[in-house]
This record gives sequence, C-alpha cells and structure tokens, in this order.
Amino acid sequence: MNDRVTLAMGAGGRQTAKLIDEVFASRFASPLLTADDAAVLARPEGRIAMSTDGFIVSPSFFPGGNIGKLSICGTVNDLACMGARPTYLTCAFVIEEGYPLEDLRRIADAMATTAAEAGVTLVAGDTKVAGKGQVDGVFITTTGVGVLADDIDCGGANALPGDAIIVTGDVGRHGCTILLSRDDFGIEANVTSDCAPLWSSVEAMLDVTHNIHVIRDATRGGVGTVLYEIAGQSNVGVSLDASAIPVDPAVGGVCRMLGLEPLYLACEGRLVVIAPAKEAPALVEALRGCPHSGGATIIGHITSERPSWVVMNTEVGTQTLLPQPTGELLPRIC
Amino acid sequence: MNDRVTLAMGAGGRQTAKLIDEVFASRFASPLLTADDAAVLARPEGRIAMSTDGFIVSPSFFPGGNIGKLSICGTVNDLACMGARPTYLTCAFVIEEGYPLEDLRRIADAMATTAAEAGVTLVAGDTKVAGKGQVDGVFITTTGVGVLADDIDCGGANALPGDAIIVTGDVGRHGCTILLSRDDFGIEANVTSDCAPLWSSVEAMLDVTHNIHVIRDATRGGVGTVLYEIAGQSNVGVSLDASAIPVDPAVGGVCRMLGLEPLYLACEGRLVVIAPAKEAPALVEALRGCPHSGGATIIGHITSERPSWVVMNTEVGTQTLLPQPTGELLPRIC
Repeated sequence: MNDRVTLAMGAGGRQTAKLIDEVFASRFASPLLTADDAAVLARPEGRIAMSTDGFIVSPSFFPGGNIGKLSICGTVNDLACMGARPTYLTCAFVIEEGYPLEDLRRIADAMATTAAEAGVTLVAGDTKVAGKGQVDGVFITTTGVGVLADDIDCGGANALPGDAIIVTGDVGRHGCTILLSRDDFGIEANVTSDCAPLWSSVEAMLDVTHNIHVIRDATRGGVGTVLYEIAGQSNVGVSLDASAIPVDPAVGGVCRMLGLEPLYLACEGRLVVIAPAKEAPALVEALRGCPHSGGATIIGHITSERPSWVVMNTEVGTQTLLPQPTGELLPRIC
Repeated sequence: MNDRVTLAMGAGGRQTAKLIDEVFASRFASPLLTADDAAVLARPEGRIAMSTDGFIVSPSFFPGGNIGKLSICGTVNDLACMGARPTYLTCAFVIEEGYPLEDLRRIADAMATTAAEAGVTLVAGDTKVAGKGQVDGVFITTTGVGVLADDIDCGGANALPGDAIIVTGDVGRHGCTILLSRDDFGIEANVTSDCAPLWSSVEAMLDVTHNIHVIRDATRGGVGTVLYEIAGQSNVGVSLDASAIPVDPAVGGVCRMLGLEPLYLACEGRLVVIAPAKEAPALVEALRGCPHSGGATIIGHITSERPSWVVMNTEVGTQTLLPQPTGELLPRIC
C-alpha cells in the first residue's frame, strides 16, 4: 500500500475499500460496524440523546492527544452533558491527498482506545479524500447517540439561584497546549491537553443523585463562555470565587505572559456542573474518585443578582465583571 | 452582520451564536433543535439505523441542487436503503473564512426544504470556521437516525440467484452534471443532477412487500460499483441487459465524447433494488408512482454463474464483463 493517501482512495472503488479495511475497520472492528449504507442497531432502552461535532484542530498532534482522541472525547462528552450514556458513534473523515497513512493510523489508534475507554461503539463511518490544498490535513466529524433515564433533565436553562458551581479540574489546559503547539510565540512550557472522555465522571455523579441542573463541557470559549451561556439561558447571575478557580501553574504562567484569561481557554476534559448546594459536596467527592476529575472543586454559586452576568470575587474583596465573550479567541482548538 | 464568514463566527462566542441564529436556527427551527450539547429525543419505536456521510462536492452549486440538498439526500437515502424511515438528522459545517453568507443561506434553505420533503428533523448542528485556504469553501457532514420494522432485512449480502435487479431511473446524471460544472471540458449539455430524497420511494416499495433483499443508492462509483459490491458481498453473479439500462440522451452523448461508462458515474437520486423476481413487477409499478422514481425499470438479474462478476449482455447477443471499479473515477462528486 502507498504510504500516503491518494485521491483514488476516496473514489469509492477498490482502493477506498482497502484504505477502510487496513486503517479503520481493523481498529474499529465490531459486529455493529456496517459494510452497508447504515448500521442497524437494537431498539434503545430509553430516551436517546444525539450530538454532532466537527474537529479541525491544527496541529493534529499535540501533547496529551491528537485529533482522533479529541473527536471521540468531544462527542462522548456532549452526550454525557445531557446525562446520556454514550452508546453509538459514527465518524466521517475528510483527508487531504498526500496525507501520511502512518499519521492516519495513529489517529485511528487513538480513536479506538478512547472509544473503548468511553464504552462507545463505532457503528458507521465515511471517508472522503480532497485534493491537495483543498483541506488542511484531516478533518473529523463524529456524531453520537446516547441513552438516558427518564428522570434526568440537565440543560443550560435549568440553573437556579443558590446552586453551587463545580468545575471538574484545572482550566484552560487544552487551549494553552494548542496555542504553544502552534509555535507562534516561541514559549516553552510543560503543558499537556486535558482531553479525556468524561462519561465515567458523569456516571459517578448520577450514582449520587439525578438532581443535577446543568452539565456542560467547557470546550470552545472555555469555562467563561460556558458560564455566560448558562447565565443567559437561565436568566441568572454567576458569582465566582477567583481564588477557587484551579489553574495549573504552567498554564497560569503562559496566560500572564500573553495577557490571556485561563477561563477563556478551551478545556477538552473539564465539566462545569451546576447543582443544588446541598448536593454539591457529595458530587465533588464522587468526581474526585474518577480518573479525569480528581481536581473537582466548587468555584462559585448562582445568584438572582445581575442576571446574565458573571461576577468574579477577588481575594482582596473586590468584585469585577468577567468580560463577555466575543469574537475570535483561539481558532481551531477543537 | 458582515456579509462574509469570519473566524470570529467560529470561535464559540457571541458572533458564533449570531451566525447560528441568523443562518441556521431560523431555517431549521424545531422544538427538538437543541441549544444544549446534545438533543434529547423520544424513545424510538423500533430498531434504529444510523449513518453518516461527508460532503465536499466542488462546485458547491450545480444544476439541480447544491451541497446542502445533497447533504440531506445522501444521509436520508443511506437510511432508506436499510428500510429505515429517516427520523433525526444532525449537520456539521466546516466553513472557509471569507465564505459569502448569502451562499450559506442558500445552502441552508436547500437543506431545510429537502429535510421537510424527506420528513426528517434536524436536531443538532455544529459550525466550525477554518482559516482562508484551510478548507475549500464549505464541507458538510450529516448523520441520521432512522427507525425500521423488525421484519425488514435489506443488506448487500442478501442477493440470491434468480432475483431481479431494478434501477429507479436513468443513471449517471449527478456525476455527469458535476463533471460539466467543473468547466474542464468546455462541453455544454442540458444535464441536471438527479439529487433527491428517496424515502418516499422506499416507503412505497415497503407498502408492497418487506421481501426485498438489497437496496443501495448508487452514489460514489455509480451503479457499476454498487453492483460489484453486492456481487462480492453476496458471492453471486450479476447479469445486466445493456439495452434496458436507462441513460438520458444528453448524459449518453457526454459519455461517448469523453469515453466514460454511465454505469460508473454517480447518481444521487437512484436506487439499485434487488428482490425476488415474483415481487419485481409490483415493486416497479409502485416506484413509477413516486416523484423521483418514475423511470424505474428492471435491468437484469442475479445468477449463480461467475460469482463476484458483473456481465453485460449486449443487444447483438454478446457478453462482456463490466470492468471492475478501481482508482479515481471522478473526485468530489459527493
């Protein structure tokens, strides 16, 4: 086999079949993975959740992961945020002509490993090859279906005054990692992406209580953007304790050098959880026992004051408004 | 609002929300379309089918459709090919910085219209913006979930000797249209794409009988590639009556000029149906009553001779083997 992707591998003929067999089918093997136009699956035992996400991250490989791992985590986490157990996943690739097959294999390896950890089965895929220069490397779109219990109702509009705000670990690692990988700044720092599948964290919380109002993964735009979205959807205020927000020292250092706010850097393995204050301590304890949420902590609470705004309470007792997210933050971080 | 897509519109902040509201949410409005990470949907009444497809067609607009219409038809038809009623759809966009918003609106219009015709609801979406030159215009990935009855079993491995082979209309129109749209040949011909959502055609067949062995849409690689795939998966021979294969005169003319075989040009609105010979006449009659399958006809049958091969029987009584599909046929036709 050629060591680079060719246009013929995307034309639907024998070479497409070979590419799919050698790179994808061998890694994603499952009785459900279809050779037909669509996978036929058992009747789901409950309501279903459905989510899609496109991944165009540049560079494709970064400390702590690659676009393949990211593409599984992103969709698995979106389902988990609705309280849904990720069950079935599809993936669609657009690959640039000339892309190294070895890189594609590493991406597929990461996808298979991450899907297995998340307990999700890849059931259908699609591969397209675009001409040289018509796509930058490889883009992946994953779509997932999850199953959720009838009494779970997580959503951005459900936050209530008095609720506690939990974050499941230190913030801004993924965005900072991509920023440094792009070489534009010449900064060396020991930062790895937090990219991780989080269904096990959500499952641990649901084992404690179904009384959780909001779960969001803090991807594009980071925790700050997610909190502004929730504040708007729920028409409530957000009050943060600045000293409680966990930031890795290396990430904090990079942010100070570049004048960035870690709350606006993307995470790919962190959840924002909003739940009644009485449930919060048990939720934090359950999260701390999970592989990717050991740093879970309460960072603030929901208020009825200043609806739609996020207020930071600093160590010296002052209050500042977190700036509203707008415009271009850090392109192509997911 | 700016009249072109900016990187800021893909950053997840206020401008992303504005782009989604103005271009997509306004057209895809539905109580199911989510502002959360995933859509939560009712428990499906039966087994589900799931399929994904990426669309990178160039040019994005062509006679008879555009990439938006195509992206709905492709996934709806993949579900229909399993005998599944298309129910829920997600769409993920990757858009080049600087892409005209007006073109994006036309694409979204076509998606909304086609989804409505197909009876499918858009429940979740994703929008990413890539830098100028990092993606060629707009790529769309759609993923669908459909619901199917327990006694339906359509699949490429189910063809049996004696089965009739039906095609639902003239072949090669979409591939020919894209070829001519690309201007490389300077040929003018009045050809429009056959791009169409085909669930109504499949539903009409299922109203006649569930005893259908294979349904495939003849997209990438055309009818010839699909027949070779089925011959291989079912380990049977395919015998075609060359004079029965419907080809539009303009498409036939272009093919003769360029030395192309219409059976290897993509269709986006044609099905290959394989069913017991005794069911075939009623299926053809039902198809002919459908909006996009008026030209349905029997083009050959399945044999136990020459397993894995497709044989053409010509008007003058000779037999030729249809060449096996391989390599690059016509890139980026879907």
